[in-house]
Amino acid sequence: MSVTKVVFQGERGAYGEIAAIQYFPTAKLMPLKSFQDVFISAEKGDADYAIVPVENSIEGSVNEIYDLLLETKMNAIGEVYQRVKHCLIANKNSDKIKFAYSHPQALAQCRGYLQRYGIEAMPAYDTAGAVKMIKEKEMFDSAAIASRRAADLYDMQIIEEGIEDRKNNYTRFLILSLIDIKMEIEKDAKYKTSIIFSLRHIPGALFEILNEFASRRINLTKIESRPTKETPWEYNFYVDVEGNLLDKDLSSALESIRSKSSYIKILGSYKRAEFH
Amino acid sequence: MSVTKVVFQGERGAYGEIAAIQYFPTAKLMPLKSFQDVFISAEKGDADYAIVPVENSIEGSVNEIYDLLLETKMNAIGEVYQRVKHCLIANKNSDKIKFAYSHPQALAQCRGYLQRYGIEAMPAYDTAGAVKMIKEKEMFDSAAIASRRAADLYDMQIIEEGIEDRKNNYTRFLILSLIDIKMEIEKDAKYKTSIIFSLRHIPGALFEILNEFASRRINLTKIESRPTKETPWEYNFYVDVEGNLLDKDLSSALESIRSKSSYIKILGSYKRAEFH
Repeated sequence: MSVTKVVFQGERGAYGEIAAIQYFPTAKLMPLKSFQDVFISAEKGDADYAIVPVENSIEGSVNEIYDLLLETKMNAIGEVYQRVKHCLIANKNSDKIKFAYSHPQALAQCRGYLQRYGIEAMPAYDTAGAVKMIKEKEMFDSAAIASRRAADLYDMQIIEEGIEDRKNNYTRFLILSLIDIKMEIEKDAKYKTSIIFSLRHIPGALFEILNEFASRRINLTKIESRPTKETPWEYNFYVDVEGNLLDKDLSSALESIRSKSSYIKILGSYKRAEFH
Repeated sequence: MSVTKVVFQGERGAYGEIAAIQYFPTAKLMPLKSFQDVFISAEKGDADYAIVPVENSIEGSVNEIYDLLLETKMNAIGEVYQRVKHCLIANKNSDKIKFAYSHPQALAQCRGYLQRYGIEAMPAYDTAGAVKMIKEKEMFDSAAIASRRAADLYDMQIIEEGIEDRKNNYTRFLILSLIDIKMEIEKDAKYKTSIIFSLRHIPGALFEILNEFASRRINLTKIESRPTKETPWEYNFYVDVEGNLLDKDLSSALESIRSKSSYIKILGSYKRAEFH
């Protein structure tokens, strides 16, 4: 049996890699530079699965991923929540830390800490990538903000752990695959289904779509809108609902929505992850 | 009569400054480093107005602004659309351009152009700030991506104009003020009203709120959700609707929503901007 291959964005030690280990404890994990690369690689079949962040409990949706989900041929087959716990990471024997490099979102999440210690925030592409950079460039007045795993992998010093301003910091990841996994419905398991639709811009159009769920007591767990990019101020809507495609109520709701929207795409049904 | 003062984020030449000139042709425009500074300054009364980007036709909502709108005491009193036309800007007598510095969103919007010419994208905090930096640091192998105005202000060379991958690139700005401008309703003018509300997480809650608009034929122009940050996966909703607070239908809809939502904030009514 061949080893399962999973692609994630970022350098080794990125939160995407940690989430992948949680979902696929024995898989071969392959880092890629950009989210676009992750989608392309899994779509070509170079990997069995892609794992991508869709939403953070503090920062909200990851816009670029939503745009890529619109175009992908892959299906959503799972989700996983990953706690984000930022560390201030430096070379051993560093001087006083004046600068902190990280992804702008991680910098924003540690704004209070950085201000308290008079450390200037410096944008980088990547959390774990910033650790790699300050190591390779032997920067002794600079630190990186990234995961404990990133510090361990690059053999760097953790100055402080848990420096994020809010502790309820979680990222939700989706697992994507070209193969639509045949669902074996477990009686007591809870499912989610993710769909995308776009609307002609008429009064009440969104309301009519949501009515298809509300009238069947189907709960929405998330609604997101993104510009279509073709016509300014027209939107695609991304909706997650409870239930799976084998539920009669949900499939009849989706059938009605199909007739009312100018575009609909069903990303897939998957088991709801435990949030802990 | 004292001069009207307007604060915007970024260095001089930022798109926020260009939008401010469009809306306030004779005002004194004051650049500030961060969006947070812009809100604080106008809330303290150091400026009469703040102008902030809420949404781009390609990239979608500006998350940080939505979070700041939740907390602000200011009212939305106007909106303006600004075309975003990126230029590749360099020092005069530059060498071959290997790197392009700009805000990550501007870099993303010119991804195709940069790939075509083999130029590496380098993140910076600011579009116009990147122009200032490559000038001050006398970088001859690097360019910045920013507005024509930024090139002119810093007396730099425009290598190419209009390098964004999609031409329908517009940003919508809101004008904020501590003073709730008494509305003089113009009979033929069109208005918009911006509100924020949060919901208890029950099936159909969002649907019930939207029903208050739909049943009165009030058109939604935008709906956005942002995490509450207090409880993971609970959201505040930001809605723009057509009409103003003096409309009977709209005020009765808002009254009903107030009784159904756990929190509601009315940002304000303002004249709808021409989109051109």
